[in-house]
Amino acid sequence: MPLPDIRPATLSPISLPPAARHGDTLDAIDTPALLLDLDAFERNVALMQAAASAAGLALRPHAKAHKSVAIAQAQRRAGAVGICCQKVSEALPFVNAGVNDVLISNQVVGAAKTALLAQLALRARISVCVDHEVQIEALAAACAATGSRIEVLVEIDVGQQRCGVADAEAVLRLCAAIKRHPQQLHFKGLQAYQGAIQHLRTVAERRAAAAAAAARAAAVRDALLAAGLACECITGGGSGTVAFDLSSGVYTEVQPGSYVFMDADYGRNEAAGLHFEHSLFLLSSVISEGQGDRLVLDAGLKTLSAECGPPQVWAGGALSADLSVLALNDEHAIVQHLGGPRPTLGQRLLLVPGHCDPTLNLHDQLVALRGGRVEALWAIEARGLSR
Amino acid sequence: MPLPDIRPATLSPISLPPAARHGDTLDAIDTPALLLDLDAFERNVALMQAAASAAGLALRPHAKAHKSVAIAQAQRRAGAVGICCQKVSEALPFVNAGVNDVLISNQVVGAAKTALLAQLALRARISVCVDHEVQIEALAAACAATGSRIEVLVEIDVGQQRCGVADAEAVLRLCAAIKRHPQQLHFKGLQAYQGAIQHLRTVAERRAAAAAAAARAAAVRDALLAAGLACECITGGGSGTVAFDLSSGVYTEVQPGSYVFMDADYGRNEAAGLHFEHSLFLLSSVISEGQGDRLVLDAGLKTLSAECGPPQVWAGGALSADLSVLALNDEHAIVQHLGGPRPTLGQRLLLVPGHCDPTLNLHDQLVALRGGRVEALWAIEARGLSR
Repeated sequence: MPLPDIRPATLSPISLPPAARHGDTLDAIDTPALLLDLDAFERNVALMQAAASAAGLALRPHAKAHKSVAIAQAQRRAGAVGICCQKVSEALPFVNAGVNDVLISNQVVGAAKTALLAQLALRARISVCVDHEVQIEALAAACAATGSRIEVLVEIDVGQQRCGVADAEAVLRLCAAIKRHPQQLHFKGLQAYQGAIQHLRTVAERRAAAAAAAARAAAVRDALLAAGLACECITGGGSGTVAFDLSSGVYTEVQPGSYVFMDADYGRNEAAGLHFEHSLFLLSSVISEGQGDRLVLDAGLKTLSAECGPPQVWAGGALSADLSVLALNDEHAIVQHLGGPRPTLGQRLLLVPGHCDPTLNLHDQLVALRGGRVEALWAIEARGLSR
Repeated sequence: MPLPDIRPATLSPISLPPAARHGDTLDAIDTPALLLDLDAFERNVALMQAAASAAGLALRPHAKAHKSVAIAQAQRRAGAVGICCQKVSEALPFVNAGVNDVLISNQVVGAAKTALLAQLALRARISVCVDHEVQIEALAAACAATGSRIEVLVEIDVGQQRCGVADAEAVLRLCAAIKRHPQQLHFKGLQAYQGAIQHLRTVAERRAAAAAAAARAAAVRDALLAAGLACECITGGGSGTVAFDLSSGVYTEVQPGSYVFMDADYGRNEAAGLHFEHSLFLLSSVISEGQGDRLVLDAGLKTLSAECGPPQVWAGGALSADLSVLALNDEHAIVQHLGGPRPTLGQRLLLVPGHCDPTLNLHDQLVALRGGRVEALWAIEARGLSR
């Protein structure tokens, strides 16, 4: 079969049509596609804000979960004081879109990053975490070069054994370093995040672990007070522990992220007090009838992260007991048909991702639906921004 | 501290500076960044092509591993007959760039996808896999609408139990369906890929499993011949089994992908005959001195997929025995310091990704270096294209 005659200079590129258009139902959306159930999402946003407000705490949702300006703006409209980002570059689209209060809930190390942070601080209230004097000196120098001022939280380790200093004495030493640069830096308080307990499965375990983390934060807070140093802000908490963090009497602000979406891993937690709904789904099509009781979908590792386990099939408003995802390859999901009608070639299935944060980071767009129809297409502007 | 005065209408967006520039050494590259060792990469490209040519087989490397036009072009220049893609949309940037022979090594189901495939077939030689008559009818209709002709491979299951029909009888039925559309479709042969054996660790296991897959393909080929149907092409094989596939006497073409990069998972295979080198690395910086013998890097699940295990530290041209990655969070890697000098804040480390394909799909750019300096910045044009 002869090769098609190609005259590249006269050919305009073939373009990819949109995966979804306003008004589309599920059957019209090209797959795989990342979907947002707007009603469930809005209930999640409202519920978290209501809980924080009722407890008298500030809500600063973590944008690393959604990476989407439209979602940050929805959270701000509901009452959030600002957002968290995990990286300086991640904050860029948010600040450019007018989100004017961002906490980088992480250490920022490297000249290019501190320079960019200082630039952002000319446009928005920026706070950042430190756990070493070298970071403080570099931040001060970067701010001096641009004429910016940044708020600094000292990160304390409250059990995760990742970043953060061990105790109040270390905090005091870092505060002394911060106070040497009053024009560039302002000590705001403590970052006290315990990421390792968010997925403890039972309420009892999670409550106890959250209390332990809060107690460690309280001990540091009290030791600082005794040394004459007050913390304006003690921020921490995640979607798994926030129900306990809000009543701990320690945090002034909480920074949960995943609650807007939930995922299969969070779904395996025994729910505590606050019931968030699954709002994020991966729409996938059956592309092969496979072997025996298996069928094959068109979604795999390129559209779903798998380090927290496979996605779960969603049907009739609940996790399906009839269809089980056994494995993910690069672009395929192997699904076992356990009961009910057997899905046919081309049929679409909804999957709840195993872990929402890294799954979202694989996509450029969220297809937002209400009542089964596409209402909006939201860009995931901060996708891939990890510098 | 008062909020900065914001007048959005007069502010131009803050832009992200490039992560790397031509001539940069590692210390100047902002992290995390995905790096390519050009010398090792080029040796991998040449070695695979030489092996295929020596065996008299065609090499059709799988672009799902690299998703990068520059790499596909390098493979073509070395002698590849074309490329494989796993999705129609993934093929788009390659065809637009003039890569004129693409096998979609997968089933294509859905009107939007078949329409796009038929469009591509006006620009390039396109082949696609089928394992069901419904797919064949849809492809024929799409080609009729555009005036295209597409080559069709019937996929047979040679042990993976994913897509593909079970036996020669099923192939003959599908071929009969293909032959009903001679203006639109041409039967080219068999797709016979065994993805489940690529990471069997010992040479003995992998050789035996590859032989079993090849034997199944040979049985179908022979049954088809006996029925008067010849296969122009029998294509399959992956980076783990290609050394055996080339001498099987069954395949006319092989489609390995990961060999260009290798990764930690492939590195755990006992190497067989063909020794490919690690050429893909994630450059990451120490951002926190952590606790005890732990330190924390700025690369996590947002820049490294973890379903095949954590990345491995690379130092002095080999996997490091002094530093071990214990865990990945969203944007952090926890590294254990076991020996040698302790890395300091800001120091850069090279990481070999656990699994190259989904790791690459997290990035928009490959920073290509030679002799320790940036020589090129290659876009990963097909990142995120899974439709």
